[in-house]
Amino acid sequence: MTETFVIAQGGGPTAVINQTLAGATLEVRKRYPGARVLGAKHGVRGIRAGNFVDLTALPEQQLRLIAATPSAALGSTRDKPDAAYCEAILKSLRDVGATAFINIGGNDTAGTQQILVEAAGGDIAFVHAPKTIDNDLVESDHTPGFISAAEFIAGAFLSIDLDFRALPGIYVGIVMGRHAGFLTTAAAAWQHDDASAPHLVYVPERAFSAKRFIDDVREAQSRHGRCIIAMSEGVTGEDGRTVVENLVPADRLERDAHGNIRLSGGELGMAIEQLLRDGLPGARARVDTFGYLPRGNIATTNATDAQEAFEAGAFAVETAARGGGSVALQYADGSTRPQIVPLASVAGKTRHLPHDFLEPERNRISAPCRAYFERLLPKRFTLADPLA
Amino acid sequence: MTETFVIAQGGGPTAVINQTLAGATLEVRKRYPGARVLGAKHGVRGIRAGNFVDLTALPEQQLRLIAATPSAALGSTRDKPDAAYCEAILKSLRDVGATAFINIGGNDTAGTQQILVEAAGGDIAFVHAPKTIDNDLVESDHTPGFISAAEFIAGAFLSIDLDFRALPGIYVGIVMGRHAGFLTTAAAAWQHDDASAPHLVYVPERAFSAKRFIDDVREAQSRHGRCIIAMSEGVTGEDGRTVVENLVPADRLERDAHGNIRLSGGELGMAIEQLLRDGLPGARARVDTFGYLPRGNIATTNATDAQEAFEAGAFAVETAARGGGSVALQYADGSTRPQIVPLASVAGKTRHLPHDFLEPERNRISAPCRAYFERLLPKRFTLADPLA
Repeated sequence: MTETFVIAQGGGPTAVINQTLAGATLEVRKRYPGARVLGAKHGVRGIRAGNFVDLTALPEQQLRLIAATPSAALGSTRDKPDAAYCEAILKSLRDVGATAFINIGGNDTAGTQQILVEAAGGDIAFVHAPKTIDNDLVESDHTPGFISAAEFIAGAFLSIDLDFRALPGIYVGIVMGRHAGFLTTAAAAWQHDDASAPHLVYVPERAFSAKRFIDDVREAQSRHGRCIIAMSEGVTGEDGRTVVENLVPADRLERDAHGNIRLSGGELGMAIEQLLRDGLPGARARVDTFGYLPRGNIATTNATDAQEAFEAGAFAVETAARGGGSVALQYADGSTRPQIVPLASVAGKTRHLPHDFLEPERNRISAPCRAYFERLLPKRFTLADPLA
Repeated sequence: MTETFVIAQGGGPTAVINQTLAGATLEVRKRYPGARVLGAKHGVRGIRAGNFVDLTALPEQQLRLIAATPSAALGSTRDKPDAAYCEAILKSLRDVGATAFINIGGNDTAGTQQILVEAAGGDIAFVHAPKTIDNDLVESDHTPGFISAAEFIAGAFLSIDLDFRALPGIYVGIVMGRHAGFLTTAAAAWQHDDASAPHLVYVPERAFSAKRFIDDVREAQSRHGRCIIAMSEGVTGEDGRTVVENLVPADRLERDAHGNIRLSGGELGMAIEQLLRDGLPGARARVDTFGYLPRGNIATTNATDAQEAFEAGAFAVETAARGGGSVALQYADGSTRPQIVPLASVAGKTRHLPHDFLEPERNRISAPCRAYFERLLPKRFTLADPLA
């Protein structure tokens, strides 16, 4: 039987998601001469509609160029297929004679693969290849796309800290992350010294108190002459409601088709600015919502991230040969390698920031968190000590 | 008489302002062995307070490290000295035996130097060395700091465009720039092809109409399947009032000591988002305010910018030797060189985006604007054509 691989990309794009597409495509062509590779346009939505682009004969040079281009070259989708949607996907996969379906994405994408494997009954190998800047896949040490986004955050906070050393004040940078704080803690990856930013870190995993926040900002400001804060968009109060829900008037909240409140807008930033105005009147306070800037930024595409994403794609083909599963980057004995883990162990689950990644009593990152980033994101820049 | 150079840094920092500090310091040491170099902490504020750091014997290696570190190593200030403040500066300069004062900054800094030269009466050489990401100094082809900030903007819009090609929608990126639109037009510097972002550009120099905006967004969306917009924070309506003033409730506007409305917050972004919600109901629309991220971002420090900033500092010492003035980077016969221009021709003036940098009938950049950026910011990245 001729092998036919279908490949799709889902969810929010990253700087290196096309590396995984290229890695998988080239690996199929190497292993199975004569096999077909079909790319689904805009993820499962393209499969359902029978909307494919044939990658079988695409020149390798062009695939390498695609690999180095950020965001999802095939297009992406936010669709989360239910059982009926999955039936339509299956029918389309069978119509094109698919023997394997590699879906590149996060935990929702793994969830889709899990539904499909249960509905299909064994004639197609279903593979989830990892991708997310949130770094929130269980079974993974880290995820393709995370290091590049983390490098953006690390460089941004390093630079903002120098800016606010020159013109003192309070600064809050709000970082994507609904349930997991990994990307926000990356703000501390390139701290110059103990006095460097971020002076405070707020993640979804630790309850946010507005009063404690103001006290901590005041204290950091008096100690360092400035206070730089990294905050996840998904910070949540002790009542379990997001700070956005608690601080923003209900008529200004936007919800998606799944009922999730949109966190990526400017609402949280404006609310935090108001908190600072009320709690520390007269202070110079600035809030930036980083929004989409870190997600697939070509300026901070990390070479290790790119290579690991490519290898994850190639390994997805090996995973298909072994019957399917989820690819996880795992770390052991000083190196990172892709491994096969069960789809069910990844699907729909969220990996949270380990409890010991923050200091117990202060909103500062801990030594284990620092060690994690020193391994993933070695310092790229050497800075001078301040003169002033 | 022993030469004594005082050097200060003013206004918003840039990625390369310390190159100018290092260039001037090393040039003094080369030209005038035995001369003193004093850095003023936090600009004119440090001079008034007699707060200096001695750079005379700082090892060259350390100065080179400072040069490569973004933001103002000496600290900066937003003070705009009046006559009395200038008298205090003059007294302090005389107390330390200053023979020259090099002030690195924008048009306000040139203004300070102009007041000082009139008050001093000839015993001290006053020099303005250029620095601004706004690129708004008259007599300059471009200003140190601009190219690096422009590279951030160019890369960001390139990346956002790819993101929104994968997940279609409307995106507005709001860019610093109160009176001049240069930095906003840099969004178009690395357009991949005619269909690439930014599809619309709004600068302070061209009147903004909310109705026309919605019509143009609708048209671009139907043509490209997405619409990416670059907008200056200082966009202004036909009535001469900024869009921020017109769209944001007065009690939410913040003013500085000079009565200027703060534009760098999220207010404009929220107002534009509301415009899009009302004008194009149901559309996926996202607005990011870039805020401080482009200003001194280490990830996009440009090598040409760094070298030109260093040379502008060295040339400031030559300018002092010739009695003082403002340093301007001018372009002729295929190369950029620093030149001396009168302080009065730069002080307090704003250079605007040339009229022919936008197409006459559409909010798109023109061929002359494109040629300007092709000269300043050669393409750094080669992208693949889309598959989807």
